[in-house]
Amino acid sequence: MSEIEGFWAVVPAGGSGTRLWPVSRATSPKFLHDLTGSGRTLIQATVDRLRPLAGQRVLVVTGARHVDAVARQVPELDSDHVLAEPSPRDSMAAIAWAAAVLEARDADAVLGSFAADHVIDGEAEFRAAVTEAVAVAREDYLVTIGIEPTHPSTGFGYIQAGRQLPGFATACRARQFVEKPDAERAATYLATGEFRWNAGMFVVRARVLLDLLQRWHPELAAGARALAAAPDRRDEIWPTLEKIAIDHAVAEPAADEGLVAVVPGSFGWDDIGDFRSLAELLPGDASNGVTTVGPGQVETVDSTGLVLTASDRTIALVGVEDVVVVETHDAILVTTTDRAQDVKKIVQRLGDRGRDALL
Amino acid sequence: MSEIEGFWAVVPAGGSGTRLWPVSRATSPKFLHDLTGSGRTLIQATVDRLRPLAGQRVLVVTGARHVDAVARQVPELDSDHVLAEPSPRDSMAAIAWAAAVLEARDADAVLGSFAADHVIDGEAEFRAAVTEAVAVAREDYLVTIGIEPTHPSTGFGYIQAGRQLPGFATACRARQFVEKPDAERAATYLATGEFRWNAGMFVVRARVLLDLLQRWHPELAAGARALAAAPDRRDEIWPTLEKIAIDHAVAEPAADEGLVAVVPGSFGWDDIGDFRSLAELLPGDASNGVTTVGPGQVETVDSTGLVLTASDRTIALVGVEDVVVVETHDAILVTTTDRAQDVKKIVQRLGDRGRDALL
Repeated sequence: MSEIEGFWAVVPAGGSGTRLWPVSRATSPKFLHDLTGSGRTLIQATVDRLRPLAGQRVLVVTGARHVDAVARQVPELDSDHVLAEPSPRDSMAAIAWAAAVLEARDADAVLGSFAADHVIDGEAEFRAAVTEAVAVAREDYLVTIGIEPTHPSTGFGYIQAGRQLPGFATACRARQFVEKPDAERAATYLATGEFRWNAGMFVVRARVLLDLLQRWHPELAAGARALAAAPDRRDEIWPTLEKIAIDHAVAEPAADEGLVAVVPGSFGWDDIGDFRSLAELLPGDASNGVTTVGPGQVETVDSTGLVLTASDRTIALVGVEDVVVVETHDAILVTTTDRAQDVKKIVQRLGDRGRDALL
Repeated sequence: MSEIEGFWAVVPAGGSGTRLWPVSRATSPKFLHDLTGSGRTLIQATVDRLRPLAGQRVLVVTGARHVDAVARQVPELDSDHVLAEPSPRDSMAAIAWAAAVLEARDADAVLGSFAADHVIDGEAEFRAAVTEAVAVAREDYLVTIGIEPTHPSTGFGYIQAGRQLPGFATACRARQFVEKPDAERAATYLATGEFRWNAGMFVVRARVLLDLLQRWHPELAAGARALAAAPDRRDEIWPTLEKIAIDHAVAEPAADEGLVAVVPGSFGWDDIGDFRSLAELLPGDASNGVTTVGPGQVETVDSTGLVLTASDRTIALVGVEDVVVVETHDAILVTTTDRAQDVKKIVQRLGDRGRDALL
């Protein structure tokens, strides 16, 4: 597998991940952490995964406050390959800005957008899917990579695939994007064999993306192109851009017009929405029933669950099942995998109390 | 209430409290900690409680390795009021040594022995009980203070009271000492109204105690008296002393011969055997359902239990009931009140692995 000429990897690095507090903070979000104990943070692993396909053509879009951390974690990134958002304005503005920058450099550039905080298992399958997606994108489709579902998840949106596209190994037309379903509907989706998880991965010519955006959100497309043409006007233009997700802004209306293709991804994928997802993602430690990430030593009696540590303290668990224990330098969280969603309530509580140092 | 002339408080400060790990350690046992958040460690609170009765006549018997910590925590204690045990040899050797030291100073001395790691609620009632016990001890009884039970505990031994002693407000003859009962038997005990909890509090003339000991364990009595007579032979004599609890050595056989009296104690008492006892002992925080001891800030969502902290870290609990979280500088314990007894298994495990720094 060699680099794909003219292909640019765009890595939106945003989101605060409040359900992963106290590891993920507004000042140090999820993508800056090695949540899986792989030895690489999520953004490092994302860039590592894209390098074989894009070489030096990796563009990160992140909040201005995270630019220094990104530069430290990905030192080989040229400084003009990091776009600094003055404030969060959702995924469409971020990707449109990157698209406009690339369009100005190379009128035929194809970009692939991959979030900085997702986990992928199966590098070869990932590269194969992206390679096919780029080829389809060169036919001027908006291409998404749809993950082959392993279970009827209610935590992800879905993409319904239609007829196969002639001339490609696996790509199909995308019939529609659907929101997170309830359990019954998710089971129905899986039974049809037509549905894929929407992992928010889009591969498209920069110009095609902006032209589609121009049809449904012309001011946003014009704003992104103006930003690329006049970077010094960033702080003036950026706040005027519409806050909208790429799915709603472009992917859904384009699918309705038959302009979207889906390439199935047969690799493992997760967006690690909360500690339950992380617990399910990681292999448990057969010796004591508890999955451990970090330098802490874990001793257990009749316990199962997930322990994340930031220090070499000993964590002892006695008679607790499906527990989640997370230690950082200034906070300790104790919850269960079942209640992992509610960790965000703690963050709200801390915010209400003005305990900003912990957010 | 004024000092009782000729009365000495003896405070055995031993035990490792492995069920209270990681707060209680072999190097820093339970009695050196402020487990209740009162602002005073258990030994400090014990000495505070005895001062109004004994003045400067307080004698602490503790392990040689804890002498410095005791001196730091109770600086007003004269250095010759601390007896340093070269190794743990159970309660009879410790109290007999103290008794022999006191007997040599004052042939009529009455001692009261009160463990350094118990918690008492009701100082006035405590002083009243001790005062009556001293008066009874002056009639040459071995007197114990029996706690009026608040519930049919299976965690404590019991004392059965007999007829009231003429001339005293509340003292009775003690019929027998019984071991920790099962739940059914404990309920029967309470129904009779005759049973008190055995809190291990003994009040007795030093000479009477040693004379009783002489009858059933003559070598131990002789050894203790030799030790008092020749302190410089401590390291030679101490290891020869029999390891036995005062209950078995003296209290039980003396009760069989009608030589033991029991004064009822109407104060609250607990030996804090584990974190469940501590959780039940402390008033909960009505605002969030969790009892907190220490400087840590606790934030909760749908949680109940007990949190002990050593730092000002934030402890966040989400959806965990009857949880016990204990933070120290080198360890974090997570368990439940139901499983609190099994914390000792962690200590065994750490010992098996040679992780001595944590013991």
